[in-house]
Amino acid sequence: MADKRVRIKEVLAEQLINHQLTVMGWVRTFRNNQFIALNDGSTNANLQIVIELGKFDDALLKRITTGAALKVSGTLVASLGKGQKVELKAEQLEVLGDSDAEKFPLQPKKHSLEFLREIAHLRFRTNTFGAIFRVRHSLAFAIHDFFNKKGFIYLHSPIITASDAEGAGETFHVTAFDLENIPKTDQGTINYKEDFFGKAANLTVSGQLEAELAALALGDVYTFGPTFRAENSNTARHLAEFWMIEPEMAFADLEDDMNLAEEFIKYIIKYALDNNRDDLDFLAARLAEEEKQKPQSERSEMSLIEKLEFVVNNDFERLTYTEAIDILQNSPANKKKKFHYPISGWGIDLQSEHERYLVEKHFKKPVILINYPKEIKAFYMRQNDDGKTVAAMDILAPGIGEIVGGSQREERLEVLENRMQEMNIPVEEMSWYLDTRRFGTVPHAGFGLGFERLIQFVTGMTNIRDVIPFPRFPKNVEF
Amino acid sequence: MADKRVRIKEVLAEQLINHQLTVMGWVRTFRNNQFIALNDGSTNANLQIVIELGKFDDALLKRITTGAALKVSGTLVASLGKGQKVELKAEQLEVLGDSDAEKFPLQPKKHSLEFLREIAHLRFRTNTFGAIFRVRHSLAFAIHDFFNKKGFIYLHSPIITASDAEGAGETFHVTAFDLENIPKTDQGTINYKEDFFGKAANLTVSGQLEAELAALALGDVYTFGPTFRAENSNTARHLAEFWMIEPEMAFADLEDDMNLAEEFIKYIIKYALDNNRDDLDFLAARLAEEEKQKPQSERSEMSLIEKLEFVVNNDFERLTYTEAIDILQNSPANKKKKFHYPISGWGIDLQSEHERYLVEKHFKKPVILINYPKEIKAFYMRQNDDGKTVAAMDILAPGIGEIVGGSQREERLEVLENRMQEMNIPVEEMSWYLDTRRFGTVPHAGFGLGFERLIQFVTGMTNIRDVIPFPRFPKNVEF
Repeated sequence: MADKRVRIKEVLAEQLINHQLTVMGWVRTFRNNQFIALNDGSTNANLQIVIELGKFDDALLKRITTGAALKVSGTLVASLGKGQKVELKAEQLEVLGDSDAEKFPLQPKKHSLEFLREIAHLRFRTNTFGAIFRVRHSLAFAIHDFFNKKGFIYLHSPIITASDAEGAGETFHVTAFDLENIPKTDQGTINYKEDFFGKAANLTVSGQLEAELAALALGDVYTFGPTFRAENSNTARHLAEFWMIEPEMAFADLEDDMNLAEEFIKYIIKYALDNNRDDLDFLAARLAEEEKQKPQSERSEMSLIEKLEFVVNNDFERLTYTEAIDILQNSPANKKKKFHYPISGWGIDLQSEHERYLVEKHFKKPVILINYPKEIKAFYMRQNDDGKTVAAMDILAPGIGEIVGGSQREERLEVLENRMQEMNIPVEEMSWYLDTRRFGTVPHAGFGLGFERLIQFVTGMTNIRDVIPFPRFPKNVEF
Repeated sequence: MADKRVRIKEVLAEQLINHQLTVMGWVRTFRNNQFIALNDGSTNANLQIVIELGKFDDALLKRITTGAALKVSGTLVASLGKGQKVELKAEQLEVLGDSDAEKFPLQPKKHSLEFLREIAHLRFRTNTFGAIFRVRHSLAFAIHDFFNKKGFIYLHSPIITASDAEGAGETFHVTAFDLENIPKTDQGTINYKEDFFGKAANLTVSGQLEAELAALALGDVYTFGPTFRAENSNTARHLAEFWMIEPEMAFADLEDDMNLAEEFIKYIIKYALDNNRDDLDFLAARLAEEEKQKPQSERSEMSLIEKLEFVVNNDFERLTYTEAIDILQNSPANKKKKFHYPISGWGIDLQSEHERYLVEKHFKKPVILINYPKEIKAFYMRQNDDGKTVAAMDILAPGIGEIVGGSQREERLEVLENRMQEMNIPVEEMSWYLDTRRFGTVPHAGFGLGFERLIQFVTGMTNIRDVIPFPRFPKNVEF
């Protein structure tokens, strides 16, 4: 477009005082027929536009309503008002797009997150969601930046897959069949040979197995892509479609894996603190406001910013599952029967309440638990010499619980095959996976991190549906 | 792991002469019981390991076979041999994983691309695919780097969607139904209310419409994610699952769109040239070898590197569809009836042969065609004042054809609604999309680029199945 706009982020950062410039954005508020708060999405902050009395037609001023899009040219001057250092004295003003104030769903007042979820196509225009999605961007960029600097190769693992070995939950079917008219075999079963892929296909639950194939050739790789669960969980913690990061390192053991995960989490949180401070300050204030509604005892001891800085600046606590069970079993919470699921002894799967006790009450910092009982972990995890545990690690974060799940992988062909048989994993079908153990196998390790859980942790949003642009969950596939 | 390995890329780049160091990798070849070519995936180049006669047991040496994984410690010394500047004098040698030379499918000889496609889980260990997937990584990183530097927000548009307005081709259905037993309504139709999402859902064909929603709030955004087509095209040009990049800019017109696309393509190709020169040199040699099989007349005039440098250093040719039709109609190729589809006149859709004629014969450079007849373009493209054309642009690249398709979007509510009605797009269902035009609409523009087409262009690979780790196409969903 002929007149180049300057982004409001740049206007405010560079303080172009006395410069003539053009901005474009959406009206947040218009006070006293004189002060427009204009936002263009580049930053949480609005630019104040000042309208001189009598300079523009009343007809034009009437069109300056919340949600309308404007193009404004003028001179940037120091502001005498409170709340901003600079303001733009409008010399030319054009309404690019009107917004009927009666009909525009976003009024200049506080809307509930539930209401905004219903209009997810418009919630980008609020301060809260502008901040969330700018932070989401920064975290995504930091992830690529971290791995690229460390020499990891970004691997696009497949979305549609015929393998269901992870068995991590129910999967979505993918088919090109006309569902009204599915071809059958002579035996009356579905004739998958006639489907697009010639066999039953579903949406991936994890790219890990494919990442292992690549790591055992390229060295260090990571995936960052969508994964899917058809679990009917209508909660604030689950999505049917979410993004996962799964690094995989050849020539690595469980300690390398823990070191990578801790360094990784600290790096990306620090990146957000360094690059999105305005957005995080806004989200911290929002969270503090939300916490005021809670009884004192349930409020966080730390502000959002303090919590993030704490994670960046402190070592994560590392201990074994066995040590954790001891702590939990002897805890006042367990003895006073405060746990919904009492700690009955070694071998149980930890519940969210146990993880939170360790992180929030006992250690008061992120915790890495290692060496879980093999019975409660996946077939591909490396068996420890004790015959009872596997080289798994989970990272637990305050307020979120498990944020990372990883392990050293079983690289010994025979041990792996035996474990697969014990767990009824189809060894024959997984022959491609076992080939990596047949030909030049090496110790290797990796982990998975749910991107939305991480964003929740960084933004302080309590509902996972608020940190992904268009959430998918039971009975919801809008936009 | 206790002994830290040094990546071979670093060993070779930093020339750690006389340093004691440990490397780990896979054996490519073992000559004369003395020289091992070791590759660890970090670079195309192998490190030469020298085995002193008599230093190791014969039993150990016998296990050094193609595909075996080794850990080698020793001193890096200047090499007297041809082909490498340095070599590692082995002092300690451990076989991490054996590889039965009889059974390992990758022999130290040239395999066909078709054969390697069948063993996609192992082809990462070849020079060709190592190079391709390192280049793929670099291009992906360059994409994020480009947009992040320019202040674009990365948007994860949804993968599962109920909207099919793009109508860009057949879509895959996504369902949690037991396909053997799909619930029916009283009328005998499928009862989608009982499906996971409560309505029919499918895999996205494009994130553009969602990107528009975000751009009209955040300013500049881009998507980079998987998209899907259930087209039964069993060709070297089509995948059922592929990755797309779709930037969308608010306050932008068609010229801004062309400028962004051209700058973008040049940036990422230059990034690969700067960061993956070894891999590209290898792929250029591979391509030159492949071209020798062709008759002289079909060979490229430029080498792969020359072609990439040419794109980086030259302006793309910009012209209208109408001008292109004139050129084609008056071309010797058309007059001599060399086109399979003769140019009958204004209004026809250009075929691949026409695009390639313009790019490869007439202009001999990438071409941007704009202002296409509205009848052959999508409903959301902005109508030009001539009433006949829309503000569309396609970028055509040598050897590939269309690599980018973009447009200024129709931001005028009434014009858009009329066009949707003319084209039988369900206006009511798309009400969320039209809301952006109802409330503060602004001129905006964007484009889509197929990532695999771009990788083909940069790597010189002729089959699209060779530039994605695990290709999905009719009757193929392996690994």
